[in-house]
Amino acid sequence: MPHPAPVTMSPTLAADEALIRRRLAGEQVLSLAGGEIGLPVMPELAERLALAADRNAYGPVAGDPALRIAAAGYWERRGLATHPDAVVAGPGSKPLLFALMLAVGGDVVVPVPSWVSYAAQARLGGLRPVPVATRAGEGGVPDPGRVRDAVILARAAGHDPRCVVVTLPDNPTGTIASPATVEELAEVARELDLVIVSDEIYCDLVYDSTRPAVSPAVFAPERTVVTTGLTKSLAVGGWRLGVARLPEGPLGELVRTRLLGVASQIWSSTAAPVQAAAAWAFTEPPEVVAHVAAGRRLHETVVRAVGTLFTEAGAEVAPVRATSYLYPDFEAARDHLARVHGIRDGDGLAVTLGERYGVGVLPGSAFGEHPRPLRVRVATSRLYGESDAQRTRALSSADPLRLPWISASLERVAEVLADLTGVCVTPPTR
Amino acid sequence: MPHPAPVTMSPTLAADEALIRRRLAGEQVLSLAGGEIGLPVMPELAERLALAADRNAYGPVAGDPALRIAAAGYWERRGLATHPDAVVAGPGSKPLLFALMLAVGGDVVVPVPSWVSYAAQARLGGLRPVPVATRAGEGGVPDPGRVRDAVILARAAGHDPRCVVVTLPDNPTGTIASPATVEELAEVARELDLVIVSDEIYCDLVYDSTRPAVSPAVFAPERTVVTTGLTKSLAVGGWRLGVARLPEGPLGELVRTRLLGVASQIWSSTAAPVQAAAAWAFTEPPEVVAHVAAGRRLHETVVRAVGTLFTEAGAEVAPVRATSYLYPDFEAARDHLARVHGIRDGDGLAVTLGERYGVGVLPGSAFGEHPRPLRVRVATSRLYGESDAQRTRALSSADPLRLPWISASLERVAEVLADLTGVCVTPPTR
Repeated sequence: MPHPAPVTMSPTLAADEALIRRRLAGEQVLSLAGGEIGLPVMPELAERLALAADRNAYGPVAGDPALRIAAAGYWERRGLATHPDAVVAGPGSKPLLFALMLAVGGDVVVPVPSWVSYAAQARLGGLRPVPVATRAGEGGVPDPGRVRDAVILARAAGHDPRCVVVTLPDNPTGTIASPATVEELAEVARELDLVIVSDEIYCDLVYDSTRPAVSPAVFAPERTVVTTGLTKSLAVGGWRLGVARLPEGPLGELVRTRLLGVASQIWSSTAAPVQAAAAWAFTEPPEVVAHVAAGRRLHETVVRAVGTLFTEAGAEVAPVRATSYLYPDFEAARDHLARVHGIRDGDGLAVTLGERYGVGVLPGSAFGEHPRPLRVRVATSRLYGESDAQRTRALSSADPLRLPWISASLERVAEVLADLTGVCVTPPTR
Repeated sequence: MPHPAPVTMSPTLAADEALIRRRLAGEQVLSLAGGEIGLPVMPELAERLALAADRNAYGPVAGDPALRIAAAGYWERRGLATHPDAVVAGPGSKPLLFALMLAVGGDVVVPVPSWVSYAAQARLGGLRPVPVATRAGEGGVPDPGRVRDAVILARAAGHDPRCVVVTLPDNPTGTIASPATVEELAEVARELDLVIVSDEIYCDLVYDSTRPAVSPAVFAPERTVVTTGLTKSLAVGGWRLGVARLPEGPLGELVRTRLLGVASQIWSSTAAPVQAAAAWAFTEPPEVVAHVAAGRRLHETVVRAVGTLFTEAGAEVAPVRATSYLYPDFEAARDHLARVHGIRDGDGLAVTLGERYGVGVLPGSAFGEHPRPLRVRVATSRLYGESDAQRTRALSSADPLRLPWISASLERVAEVLADLTGVCVTPPTR
């Protein structure tokens, strides 16, 4: 095998595994790297899985009808009328995104910064990622004007961009592109005949319900594929289930046929007991709605508290409106970081935080950024406790920042940031 | 999307879905197309899944340590010493096979005939399948001499074959390549520096335990990857779990790193509750061993009975030694089939069986064969009953052929074959 490896290990998963090894080796580490939601399974949801343990048939490649009907209803309640035939389930939204890229074919416009796997998946499928920067404070949607330029340039050079991926709300920045920007992107996609793949896995983690993320499917229903899952809202990443909503009309038909072809050759179908449990969750009974809301409140409280520490330490942090991520930029501290710690770029910053302080974060380069900016992604969803008991307490607590284990993590972040930047940083509970 | 679709729907899954639609529409259909094992989940196994319903973490990309330890033990009991670190789990052996092809890269030698997805997966990964015929009665392993010729020719033409896939025991023929042929293949692979990917998903469905399938890992341990799962032996295809055993040594290390990279970017990890249940099953407690044995006996009884009907009808059928498949060849009836039914090739034979008689089978062309031979694959594992109660009865019955629903299916097969070939065919229970 003389050629280079097609892709390297996903940086988020690799960082998680490395920190687990260090913790097992007895080190004091703080995991702010992976985006896994550190909360227990909702008991009623676990019960649905257990009740479906006798389901062992493959079922349709597209997913069980009950799941597709439930997912269609889920989208309808969010203003996107959906026929169950337009829904395709898969073992996570990650494999669905990969299969969609293969199904559409051609090069893939990806935002910068964006989730670690979009560009890697494109390369793995033999496709070329076309990186396009996002607008300040509007992560997840590549600047529509720049998308137009990049696609025209790529086509002139003989390349074949056919789709653009957006993340709404955004990972890694926790921001949400404005409806105006999303509409502009939709217009550019129509003008250039691009399929829009809208990764909306965080759509239920928007803090202010009066200002939700607006899907490009609203503006370009004929060409937008939406993906989501229960990984973030119900913390069941390890169950591996995602759903895609395909556009109606001829393009949707074509994408569906191709997607099912690819899915049938890669994964056949999605774990049947998981499909059954997900079918129930997507109907959104009141207890599910309440559980998702509790998780969202906890994410907001903790990510804001951590964000304040980074701001106090002199980092610039775009206001986080969703998810459990923040994306601080230490440009203002560049001289200090270089002089005192020898840190000259985002990679160096992440390495120092990890190796010197045992604080795992990911550098901006993992999200496709140039290494020079002093940016790292900070994920706060692993701070809720070490045990299910602690995590359940965090979820139901009126003041989670005062729980000793969360408070201790915030103290540690403050201490590390103070030592790193030389600025006094006060944790919220001191 | 002007280009052709990367792959079409898996023929087995498509045939299954089509037959289900016809049955729902009220037609009398007999499903001998898909290889799904129509048996219920073993209750103790379902219980393990239910007990693990609270597991929601991603866990390592390679799979939970308990599962990897159990799978290593499973292989050790079959004469293949295995370190748990050499085991990688995935959501089915199908995605593992796809990821292995991407990890190894280069063109892929596939047996003809062979399982519908090997060649499709290679193409989907941008790789070129190199078809090589198997020896008569030794399905699953491409003729080693022809492999040498094909690889040398391909390399001379500037192509880059790097691996060879084998199926032991074989789908679609139900035969098992001899240890001598497997050893020869291993020597050719070493000579030509090919990785062997040995799909051993049917290894526990060999009827005569004194003549098991011998893995190429015995002869070429430094370059053989073995894959298996619980889909066939425990009938949990819909749970989606497979495991791969990587070679030891530097090649194994390299393949492992690359495989984990690919896996981390496509599927992250395998449904955690399913992993927990599988970890238990791979330890092979006595009740699991007994359950697998009961299934194996049932498969043997029914596939042999159906095989006898095809033989009586004048088809040539290689002696089936494993699985629930047979691969009859109607060459001897060519004139009759052409004259009376206008059937001129395997595709025509499958279409006539499906459309005229409601008997779903797959033509040899689905397995990479030239369409001309009058060969179809017949899968008998869906004949055990319509309900879990009937299927459980079939599994425990001392004489399953006398159960009314199985007997009725055999009568129907006999009737169809008699009408098709003009030869009198007597079902075993008449």
